[in-house]
Amino acid sequence: MAVYEGPVQALIDELGRLPGVGPKSAQRIAFYLLKAAPEDAKRLATAIVDAKERVSWCRRCFNIAEGELCAFCRDPGRDDTLICVVEEPRDIVAVERTQEYKGRYHVLQGAISPIEGIGPDQLRIRELLLRVDGEGVQEVILATNPNIEGEATAMYLARLLKPLGLRVTRIASGLPVGGDLEYADEITLGRALEGRRTLDG
Amino acid sequence: MAVYEGPVQALIDELGRLPGVGPKSAQRIAFYLLKAAPEDAKRLATAIVDAKERVSWCRRCFNIAEGELCAFCRDPGRDDTLICVVEEPRDIVAVERTQEYKGRYHVLQGAISPIEGIGPDQLRIRELLLRVDGEGVQEVILATNPNIEGEATAMYLARLLKPLGLRVTRIASGLPVGGDLEYADEITLGRALEGRRTLDG
Repeated sequence: MAVYEGPVQALIDELGRLPGVGPKSAQRIAFYLLKAAPEDAKRLATAIVDAKERVSWCRRCFNIAEGELCAFCRDPGRDDTLICVVEEPRDIVAVERTQEYKGRYHVLQGAISPIEGIGPDQLRIRELLLRVDGEGVQEVILATNPNIEGEATAMYLARLLKPLGLRVTRIASGLPVGGDLEYADEITLGRALEGRRTLDG
Repeated sequence: MAVYEGPVQALIDELGRLPGVGPKSAQRIAFYLLKAAPEDAKRLATAIVDAKERVSWCRRCFNIAEGELCAFCRDPGRDDTLICVVEEPRDIVAVERTQEYKGRYHVLQGAISPIEGIGPDQLRIRELLLRVDGEGVQEVILATNPNIEGEATAMYLARLLKPLGLRVTRIASGLPVGGDLEYADEITLGRALEGRRTLDG
């Protein structure tokens, strides 16, 4: 239902299409922009156009990249024998924050999800297999999300990769550090038990 | 902390300035836009620029308007003797939804809030007084929000308007229709008692 003057309603409609922005937020953001200094609103519009024009996908790992290759693929200091497979570019940021990983990445750009109609062919799996074949990779770490889609994707990839004679690993599931046994859900606690380690000493 | 390629981080930063959009949502929206069809992203950018260029404030009531006057001020069928005073343009939409009001509006563009440094001078109060003086107004309905700032603003306006010899009214506070006494907060319930009406029959 269009209730505002044309351009305002058009703006509310466009904002309402963004993920996590409901009709109320769209309206709130639209009025914020109408009240904002013209240069502030202009900067947002320009940032959108800029990002779309200048950013695309790294042709090697499918992370976001300003040129042909992303920052991680360009970096000569990273370990070529390791590939960490993630669902989305933002997952790379999460792994980088640990400062524990110095290998390469591969972004699937999603996870297998029959409900959303996403099969292996929509993901960058073929490209991963080509990389594993050609780049002297020794270990592939499957760092897809520990949910149904991510687990299914990891299982699927493991079946494809293991016959190629390399080490295929999966990130651990368990209780978050600082977490509380009492408040853990049973699936997480089950995983924590399953993945238990022998203590030294 | 800039963690993405320049244009992507710039987009995340700009999105993060919007009201109700935290760092996580900004990132989510940015990646959504990067994955979206170029024309979809372009449409949002254009909608922002368009709204800023074509929409300004009605010079009579300070609602949003595409031309000099807003749709309500242009409408010859509305009652000139009544002005409903609201804080924001979106409040007009809420009042219109009731289909009970056929008078004019006046948008203050905010409410008195010492905490946010907003005093009467930042609001369109002077313009309201000029309208009340010149347009044959008989009743001013104060429909600012029933919260601290809105109440203070209504009290302030009532004191200015009453000496001018017109009827000044305030919208009722009370329990929402369909609401439950048990779950009402004590202030709302207090207001509901205070504003009780005699039943006919």
